[in-house]
Amino acid sequence: MTDKRLLVVGSVALDDLDGPFGRRPDVLGGSACYISVSASFLTKDIRLVGVVGEDFPREHVDFLRERGVDLAGLEVQAGKTFRWRGRYSETLESRDTLDTQLGVFADFRPRLDDAQRDADLVFLGNIDPVLQLDVLEQVRRPKLVACDTMNFWITRKLDDLRAVLERVDILLINDEEARQLAGVHNLVRAADAIRMMGAKAVIVKRGDSGALLFHESGAFAAPALPLAEVVDPTGAGDSFAGGFMGSLARSAELTPDAIRRAMIYGSVLASFSVEDFSLDRLRRLGPGDVAARFRAFYDLTHFEHLDL
Amino acid sequence: MTDKRLLVVGSVALDDLDGPFGRRPDVLGGSACYISVSASFLTKDIRLVGVVGEDFPREHVDFLRERGVDLAGLEVQAGKTFRWRGRYSETLESRDTLDTQLGVFADFRPRLDDAQRDADLVFLGNIDPVLQLDVLEQVRRPKLVACDTMNFWITRKLDDLRAVLERVDILLINDEEARQLAGVHNLVRAADAIRMMGAKAVIVKRGDSGALLFHESGAFAAPALPLAEVVDPTGAGDSFAGGFMGSLARSAELTPDAIRRAMIYGSVLASFSVEDFSLDRLRRLGPGDVAARFRAFYDLTHFEHLDL
Repeated sequence: MTDKRLLVVGSVALDDLDGPFGRRPDVLGGSACYISVSASFLTKDIRLVGVVGEDFPREHVDFLRERGVDLAGLEVQAGKTFRWRGRYSETLESRDTLDTQLGVFADFRPRLDDAQRDADLVFLGNIDPVLQLDVLEQVRRPKLVACDTMNFWITRKLDDLRAVLERVDILLINDEEARQLAGVHNLVRAADAIRMMGAKAVIVKRGDSGALLFHESGAFAAPALPLAEVVDPTGAGDSFAGGFMGSLARSAELTPDAIRRAMIYGSVLASFSVEDFSLDRLRRLGPGDVAARFRAFYDLTHFEHLDL
Repeated sequence: MTDKRLLVVGSVALDDLDGPFGRRPDVLGGSACYISVSASFLTKDIRLVGVVGEDFPREHVDFLRERGVDLAGLEVQAGKTFRWRGRYSETLESRDTLDTQLGVFADFRPRLDDAQRDADLVFLGNIDPVLQLDVLEQVRRPKLVACDTMNFWITRKLDDLRAVLERVDILLINDEEARQLAGVHNLVRAADAIRMMGAKAVIVKRGDSGALLFHESGAFAAPALPLAEVVDPTGAGDSFAGGFMGSLARSAELTPDAIRRAMIYGSVLASFSVEDFSLDRLRRLGPGDVAARFRAFYDLTHFEHLDL
């Protein structure tokens, strides 16, 4: 059986990171990079759609290509690559955006070629819901569509976002944003409200408290791996999304069991991602590392029954 | 095989609760009550050691006795029962203590009889570590000792608390208190530091993010059950402790597997406890409810492997 074809649409960025473990200017970032590279440890047919400026370093293109990511959809436009500058608090529990320079991303309009339109699985990274809709108009018959979003779009483009939600199978969203979108604090009720908006399933990302899946078959809790050192949380949610979609691409059927397992692979990739700046930990992943950490998640969660 | 004998030492209190779901004055509370009653759904030989005043309502004594809790160690002293008054925030994520009246608890000195001294399992609820040490002097050869504590004792009686930790097998503590006790934010490192103080295992309670066990066999993550309605978080940690100890009492051996399973039973009892005020949800638990919710935790966490 061949894996499903995965389309990833999102940002490709240069990040400037500051936090308790030091500063890293000009490193590779962006949702589409974290998602594609994370997925590449589980599946091979990954097509990235995004845009960079003429300043985008050749080495990053080479790295994505080495990971097997198809870059036919990576446009290079005259101008600057999207740049994000952020600073994390001492405990890494919060961060401030110090600067955002959209550059060529300001005029990004995804144009899919035939191969991209025929994707089986589509992941819409956290971009303007108008662009997410634009991609949904172009894809033909995807088996599953998942997307991310953030408070910025909930506040400013709610109607467009709701139009996206009517057409996606799975929304990945963090806990505070789920509460904001649903207008209710309790996460079970928030997920119910979001599913009423159209998304068949909601995955609530809770940082080092793991992720919760809510769908018609009930709930599933994927823990975060307790790590003795977290260096850089940037891209943790996108790495989760990448591991999640890569696992689905590899699964024969998109069953509830496959979605649970995909959440664990998402957690595996997220747990690696935060262990170093940018995508650096993912660059160093060796053969067997992903499978070994999947087993660590099994060890972390497994328990046996005592008959009462 | 008969169950192990469980000794529970802690407070027996009358609580005055206020929060988004209303106010409940004069309800049964206290760590020893939540622990004993929760444990009583899993094991039968439970001896409670605590103190109340002459004002303690007869109905509460009857309730504890109906649950099979041995009350030979419940002293009745001239004076008032310990009272706690607290108010929860709208989201239930924080609470303020509005008033504490120690009453007869101020002069509590646990005096154990022979049957209590011979307990196999000892749980020291969140009381003055000087009293916890006093109990440890009196018990003979317990197979396992676990205890709880709080920020108040970490700040004011650290030396006594450390003397307790040198003699306990398992410390149950919430995340912020674990960080305070260890002086480090990262929970893996905090648990390591606390284990260096003597506790063989540390269970970090994280509210609706579940609980983490750290011991020599690694880590185990017990999720919290996502609940659509939480009414009263009072006693959630103590209900966890009761389900945990009750499950251990019922397990043939105190193996790592038994400890994992006990954490799930702890989570089961905690999940019931918060569904109503005081111990009211536990009063209504029917036969089979605990087993059914244990299966719900299995469903919540179970996943299958995909060979890579």
